[in-house]
Amino acid sequence: MEKLLPKIKSPQDLQGLTLVQLEQVASEMRETLCRLVSHRAAHFASNLGVVELTIALHTVFDMRKDRLIWDTGHQIYPHKLITGRYDQFDTIRTKGGLMGYPNPAESDYDLFMTGHAGCSVSTALGLKVGDELMPGQQGRHSVAVIGDGAFPSGIVYEALNNAGGMKTKLLVILNDNEMSICPRVGGLADYLDRLRTNPVYSGFKQELLKVLNRVPLLGDPVERFAAQTKEAVKAGLHGGMFFEELGMQYIGPIDGHNIRLLRKYLTMCQNVDVPVLLHVVTVKGKGFGPAVDDPVKFHTPAPFQQQQDVVVPIKKSTTKNYTDVASEAIGQAMRKNPRVTVMTAAMCQGNKLEPVREEFPDRFFDTGICESHAVAFAAGQAKAGLRPIVDIYSTFLQRSFDQIFQEVSLQNLPVTFMLDRAGLTGPDGPTHHGSFDLSYMRIFPNMAVLAPGDQTDLAAMVDFALQHDGPVSIRYPKTTVDQIEGQRAPIELGQAEVIRWGDDGYIVCCGSLLSDCLAAAQRLCNEGLDVGVINARFVKPLDTATILKAVRETGFVVTVEEGALMGGFGSAVLEAVNEAGESTEAIYRLGLPDAYVEHGERGELLADLGLEAEGIANACRQQAAHASLAVDNRVP
Amino acid sequence: MEKLLPKIKSPQDLQGLTLVQLEQVASEMRETLCRLVSHRAAHFASNLGVVELTIALHTVFDMRKDRLIWDTGHQIYPHKLITGRYDQFDTIRTKGGLMGYPNPAESDYDLFMTGHAGCSVSTALGLKVGDELMPGQQGRHSVAVIGDGAFPSGIVYEALNNAGGMKTKLLVILNDNEMSICPRVGGLADYLDRLRTNPVYSGFKQELLKVLNRVPLLGDPVERFAAQTKEAVKAGLHGGMFFEELGMQYIGPIDGHNIRLLRKYLTMCQNVDVPVLLHVVTVKGKGFGPAVDDPVKFHTPAPFQQQQDVVVPIKKSTTKNYTDVASEAIGQAMRKNPRVTVMTAAMCQGNKLEPVREEFPDRFFDTGICESHAVAFAAGQAKAGLRPIVDIYSTFLQRSFDQIFQEVSLQNLPVTFMLDRAGLTGPDGPTHHGSFDLSYMRIFPNMAVLAPGDQTDLAAMVDFALQHDGPVSIRYPKTTVDQIEGQRAPIELGQAEVIRWGDDGYIVCCGSLLSDCLAAAQRLCNEGLDVGVINARFVKPLDTATILKAVRETGFVVTVEEGALMGGFGSAVLEAVNEAGESTEAIYRLGLPDAYVEHGERGELLADLGLEAEGIANACRQQAAHASLAVDNRVP
Repeated sequence: MEKLLPKIKSPQDLQGLTLVQLEQVASEMRETLCRLVSHRAAHFASNLGVVELTIALHTVFDMRKDRLIWDTGHQIYPHKLITGRYDQFDTIRTKGGLMGYPNPAESDYDLFMTGHAGCSVSTALGLKVGDELMPGQQGRHSVAVIGDGAFPSGIVYEALNNAGGMKTKLLVILNDNEMSICPRVGGLADYLDRLRTNPVYSGFKQELLKVLNRVPLLGDPVERFAAQTKEAVKAGLHGGMFFEELGMQYIGPIDGHNIRLLRKYLTMCQNVDVPVLLHVVTVKGKGFGPAVDDPVKFHTPAPFQQQQDVVVPIKKSTTKNYTDVASEAIGQAMRKNPRVTVMTAAMCQGNKLEPVREEFPDRFFDTGICESHAVAFAAGQAKAGLRPIVDIYSTFLQRSFDQIFQEVSLQNLPVTFMLDRAGLTGPDGPTHHGSFDLSYMRIFPNMAVLAPGDQTDLAAMVDFALQHDGPVSIRYPKTTVDQIEGQRAPIELGQAEVIRWGDDGYIVCCGSLLSDCLAAAQRLCNEGLDVGVINARFVKPLDTATILKAVRETGFVVTVEEGALMGGFGSAVLEAVNEAGESTEAIYRLGLPDAYVEHGERGELLADLGLEAEGIANACRQQAAHASLAVDNRVP
Repeated sequence: MEKLLPKIKSPQDLQGLTLVQLEQVASEMRETLCRLVSHRAAHFASNLGVVELTIALHTVFDMRKDRLIWDTGHQIYPHKLITGRYDQFDTIRTKGGLMGYPNPAESDYDLFMTGHAGCSVSTALGLKVGDELMPGQQGRHSVAVIGDGAFPSGIVYEALNNAGGMKTKLLVILNDNEMSICPRVGGLADYLDRLRTNPVYSGFKQELLKVLNRVPLLGDPVERFAAQTKEAVKAGLHGGMFFEELGMQYIGPIDGHNIRLLRKYLTMCQNVDVPVLLHVVTVKGKGFGPAVDDPVKFHTPAPFQQQQDVVVPIKKSTTKNYTDVASEAIGQAMRKNPRVTVMTAAMCQGNKLEPVREEFPDRFFDTGICESHAVAFAAGQAKAGLRPIVDIYSTFLQRSFDQIFQEVSLQNLPVTFMLDRAGLTGPDGPTHHGSFDLSYMRIFPNMAVLAPGDQTDLAAMVDFALQHDGPVSIRYPKTTVDQIEGQRAPIELGQAEVIRWGDDGYIVCCGSLLSDCLAAAQRLCNEGLDVGVINARFVKPLDTATILKAVRETGFVVTVEEGALMGGFGSAVLEAVNEAGESTEAIYRLGLPDAYVEHGERGELLADLGLEAEGIANACRQQAAHASLAVDNRVP
């Protein structure tokens, strides 16, 4: 049969197709997705789940003028396949290729570059209000598609409440696949489960009859009715009153893999003049057996060979990641101390906390994608005497900035923040890079800000944090962990570690790039330049004494960090040296620029920015030249 | 009659009292509150509303071991009056006196120092989980009291959802007075209104009979029941199923001014082993006529003389505040440009936006205490072509840090942030000081960060921002506005303004303290030291050229900012000078220390920190001495 998908250059090309042909397109989209993830790590199960929904949306609405926001954005692949990007699809998540998230630079069909969950309802509402106020733009539809994983995020409730109050026309599609990245949690999840067993959806009336019969027929009819109503509501027979109470009209639940049905309901929603919540039920991983069976694993699977629904792993790295070391350290700490608890925000798998969850179910808390709550919740635990660990990716912890301020730093409570994925995270791109944490964590009084240089550091820092009488932040990158050889200094508050002594200059490294700094020093040594390496360990309190010594006794200091230069570690060094009344002229700062870094492999991106051994060595050579330390002069 | 309240040294002293005596205590608390606010600006109406609730809580629970969190914390006064602070009560909100918010340093009955809304359910849940895991601490009750104004805040929903999912025993008291600081908004507000008209509360069955009769008696009984149920739920007869759907048990609504009833229900709640939401209805300003009639005005009224419920204002400042200038500039901009909209988060009154709301109801949006949503909502509007202004206090904007990142800065959308109350806000204390915005705003790529030095600057900056093709942040303090004399330079991107030329050194001022800097320069001039003053205007992009010129051509530069030194304006100066390869040795930074600044009048606090004219002059004298610019040498 002739392929249809390659010929779809825009959603307009879907217009003439029959239902059977649209179903064929869906099938070809699934094949394309399966082919892609057979050779590249990518979001997978969620994309298989929204194939039909994507087709239905783009055939009912005209997204050249109507507005479509995919919440979070990891389920954007089918949308990309039919909005002119089929030919480039194999480049997805590679440097210079398509992003794995919406990207307005790729297509006008992508409105917001996203990656963090929950903001779609707010932006879709803003677009609708904006279009209505702009001359000649009235009447555009605005649609947000949000998964049940993102749904408990606080901002969603804020936005639904606002839309419901304003009664603004808006379509919110709840894509309910019973999964967050990890299995979903919370009271709302139970509620959605009840909705899915609604007789309207399941087509049976037995449940309703059961309710009617549960309340005795005798007595005051008014009271009997009240009792029946409460029972009915509890049984989920009321059809989404939770949403209606917020002022939204609720429609559903409907089968999200039936294009005909989806089109029918979407068309119906177009004609409702108040905010509507359309509840669509999908199967994550639909069309690929192993993904349906294990959607957590197949959220972003490692590459595998596709062979009739049997998964053959191509390679399995046996090298340890920082994440492994972190989760082992957490497990160790929990074994040693019954007061240690751990909080995560739907990142149990990403943070490799499954063994901890198994071993300590009472002390493991997955709040779902609710970072603000997770931090305030941890603060309450700390106040009660526990030693909570908040294990959240650097970029997502931004969502609890205000709780880090008020509930933790202001109270000076001993909460330990473990910021995984700090620095450049790679193929996910700008929304996932952890660029800002050094800059924003160090502004809070009472907060100790740490960055391990290797495996030994990370494990020891977790121990340190759990002994420290105040909040601690530890940040580490998404990469394999290094192990620096030799005798190591213990972790002490505000103490840096000199790994290598130098006469000509010093590299002061903040965390993740320590091996590159050592490699750079070795190269320079071979060239006759004697450059030492300091493992800063603490961004705050900073080891000013050690850094001042390096500044005073050698020709230059190069600071190195995998974080934003604006307000980051290097700035902390400048502040400290300036406060000590010393010149900062010989200090040169390497780090992330004041611009968003695109997606690509972490190594590629770091190299582009001069943040690998050679780039660091180059910075030293330039500083040495500036300081008139001609390399040749130094050869013994 | 003998006074009871002065003898209440702790809640234990309430234990032996009769109901009549407790009601007398309540009455005396009201008198004390009225006496206080007759001579000092303080939170008022909300405190009058919780008098009986406070007494009931402290007589039913033993808060020496049970846990009580007052959300936001501005309704803590009655609690302070019966927890050993009656004698100091008149010192409230003065420097060295009691805080106007909970303060663990004052009393063990205050668990968290708060001021930002919405986090009480999270911390109370954390305390409960913590107590259950701590050896020997099991069985403590945990109670959060939250107003209907804070209730739509996203983190509340995150916490209720988590508590409901875990089924943890917890008491959440919704103190429903139909008010936020401004009249409440959103779908949830309508829902609460419906609950309040619930027949269970109003005591009548007519409403229910009406529902039963609304659906025709003929037809399929199952379908009829389903239709009746939906009608009943819509009519609010289901009694809080919204909360029950999140997994909470709902009890209420009950009269929050009836001590006997409150005690009965609180005792009942103690015996429920799942999370409970107790819906209490109170009257904001209860017991003081004018406050009941105008609770917005009496949220934090200016001092007045109390005279039989008639309000006689003592003084009314006619001097303009920055807030006045800002709201006038917003009004002007909206008149000129129909694309300008304005967003606030329950701060319509504080931001003096009432005239704007009246004049442009279609372009004014109060989201309630939902800062995250407000920012993402504005981003959607900007994408549609509008020019939204987000008018939120500096400290509260922290709650949308991640939306500033993803929805605004990453998309480079033209949203204008107006950060009122930046710097030291005075009597509210640490939770309300806007200390961090310069540090956190400047780390975002694409963001222009501005701070006006006076009235002319602020109005011109609003114009500039609304023309600028990207996000802009403008921050200004809570104080009367100054007007610098003389010819002024127009606002241009990245351009500072030299207000006064100097040969010996320069003060580079970032915003609010410009008049003090000029006064300092004048004092120094009288002493023979010729110090210039630069009005930086832009923190980002920084006017490096002008600053470098000052560094190169004079003996010293003192930077001045009303913001955290960690990563703030002074750090930006150090970064820029360092990047230019110049020494920073002659630069000295003045600003807020790396510690929380207590409450007090803004002027008192600034003086303590050396951030007034004399402190700034002193810093210059020291730098001049260091640079060997002996004052006497410079006398002509």
